Amino acid sequence: MSKHVTIKEVAAAAGISYQTVSKVLNHQVKVSTATEERIRKAAAELGYRPNLIARSLRSQRSRMIGFSWEPTPPEQSNQIYTQFMESICYYSEAVGYHILMFPYKPGSAWVNSYRDLIETNRVDGFILSSIEMNDARIPFLLEQSFPFVGFGRANPEWEFPYVDVDGAVGMRKVVEQLVSKGHRRIALINWSETKSTSVGKNRMKGCMEALNAAGIVVPSGWIALGEGDFAFAYQNALKWLQAPLASRPTAIITFSDVMAIGVMNAALKLGVRVGPELAITGFDDSPPMQYMIPGLSSVQQPIWEVGRVAAEMLQGILNDAPPQNQSVLLEPSLVVRESSSYPAYSV
Amino acid sequence: MSKHVTIKEVAAAAGISYQTVSKVLNHQVKVSTATEERIRKAAAELGYRPNLIARSLRSQRSRMIGFSWEPTPPEQSNQIYTQFMESICYYSEAVGYHILMFPYKPGSAWVNSYRDLIETNRVDGFILSSIEMNDARIPFLLEQSFPFVGFGRANPEWEFPYVDVDGAVGMRKVVEQLVSKGHRRIALINWSETKSTSVGKNRMKGCMEALNAAGIVVPSGWIALGEGDFAFAYQNALKWLQAPLASRPTAIITFSDVMAIGVMNAALKLGVRVGPELAITGFDDSPPMQYMIPGLSSVQQPIWEVGRVAAEMLQGILNDAPPQNQSVLLEPSLVVRESSSYPAYSV
Repeated sequence: MSKHVTIKEVAAAAGISYQTVSKVLNHQVKVSTATEERIRKAAAELGYRPNLIARSLRSQRSRMIGFSWEPTPPEQSNQIYTQFMESICYYSEAVGYHILMFPYKPGSAWVNSYRDLIETNRVDGFILSSIEMNDARIPFLLEQSFPFVGFGRANPEWEFPYVDVDGAVGMRKVVEQLVSKGHRRIALINWSETKSTSVGKNRMKGCMEALNAAGIVVPSGWIALGEGDFAFAYQNALKWLQAPLASRPTAIITFSDVMAIGVMNAALKLGVRVGPELAITGFDDSPPMQYMIPGLSSVQQPIWEVGRVAAEMLQGILNDAPPQNQSVLLEPSLVVRESSSYPAYSV
Repeated sequence: MSKHVTIKEVAAAAGISYQTVSKVLNHQVKVSTATEERIRKAAAELGYRPNLIARSLRSQRSRMIGFSWEPTPPEQSNQIYTQFMESICYYSEAVGYHILMFPYKPGSAWVNSYRDLIETNRVDGFILSSIEMNDARIPFLLEQSFPFVGFGRANPEWEFPYVDVDGAVGMRKVVEQLVSKGHRRIALINWSETKSTSVGKNRMKGCMEALNAAGIVVPSGWIALGEGDFAFAYQNALKWLQAPLASRPTAIITFSDVMAIGVMNAALKLGVRVGPELAITGFDDSPPMQYMIPGLSSVQQPIWEVGRVAAEMLQGILNDAPPQNQSVLLEPSLVVRESSSYPAYSV
């Protein structure tokens, strides 16, 4: 490694006082362009690089943002976390910060990881994901007055800055597209209400509102709430699709892609043609959706943008310029493919 | 945040000398269980926590491991990076380290990111992924004598510690399974040789060796090397499968899952039954493979284990106890599903 160059040496080479050079290099003062140019040139020629550890100690800043996530089950194809990490890395580095990743732990052990990182001065703030409705991390961080931004919502009693995707809007788009094709007999498959995140609840809310607006009543037997995995979707769809043509759903809305694939498998098992005879939609537009036969329609989340907003909100907080809006909801889009592009089947 | 407790205060509370307490808390000396217990108790009661930034400055250690990855194309379902990150996070945290994530940049800009992190003392070492055959990061880090471990191989002229999955063994397992079902007319779809990583080359090598061992000669027209994406696989399979039954391949080996799905789409398009009439295999066993109809056979990489070995090798290097083996190759497994479980089709 090159020998460490000090600010003193840069000041001597530039012929400018130590105090001024220090302030300019630490972005604490503005000087004339000519002076700044002289300092930058001397710094570049000597190979000056700030020692960030020493700087952290002086400023009590680590220039790190803590991030941890709860792994998705391996059966689920989901690129949301890689995309989100790419985005928060990119937008944080642009302002001199890096992401410190630490592992998920169940229960209170996770909160302890956050506590340790704060008390050992490892991070300046956190970006939270995998947020549960009564997530213990949130009251803990609020109590500590420690900077953080959430990707996702929690118990509405807690006020904290977050960015989220408006799942309700995504589902409204799904319902409106199906209604535009003449669907009236629509069934739903979602996670159980006992699942402790707000994600499924918000999607369901948007779905029901849009169905009501279209004057569609879903029989309670056509709302399946449970595990929310492949097998759960497969079993429910199999049951519904064995009913006579005139009394079975013409469309099945699912709240995740893996459930949509489960429904597709059930349809193929029974010889029901996906598209012409049965519409299916998913959520997340994960990579296989476009390659299924037929291609499956799905709601696409603007994850790169979520990461950008989260990183920028946190930077605002760290720089004592908190965002004007404490909460940002971003709108997802609907990718319509063959699985929901046919007119509703009628006998 | 709680007031900062010093080692001096812990020593006073425990009634033990500052030097001893300091060494015990910094894991530099072993004392009797009773003494250690007294120190731990005093430390816990006072709420003592080491200030890692101050400690880093003294020891010139940041206790961070740098990690960066080149995003996979969005069309490809691949959970390798999330699994790998989970693993290196987990095994690094267990020994007091965290992962510092920084963004991918094309070309020499990426090397500059590594240089910046070294010169600003942000990291103690790196774990490299997305390694190319003539990856500029490797000679740079070797020249700097900066600790790193690669996930993947590069130009064999460079000696550096790495862990990799033995893709050749994975392909050998694929070929042997197909041969056991009587397949002799086998076609291959791989990335072009000009692709600059060793991944495709190693897989191809294992494939050709196993085919040779079985006395199978693949006509040059049945080896497709190109983009290696969905469309490339689809087009080639479409061409082959239009030949008369007796002169077309009974099995198509692909080197990634997205290519296997491309072949499956071509077969369905032409009414060729996947499984009974055509065997297909992929690589990575990404989540959709098990849900395709029929389920697609695929090679599964031991990614959690790759992460563990990489993290542990790097810790060895950082603790002046470098691993005995500079290179570790881990064996993948083959998950056999309906797409390759039928006897070879014969007319």
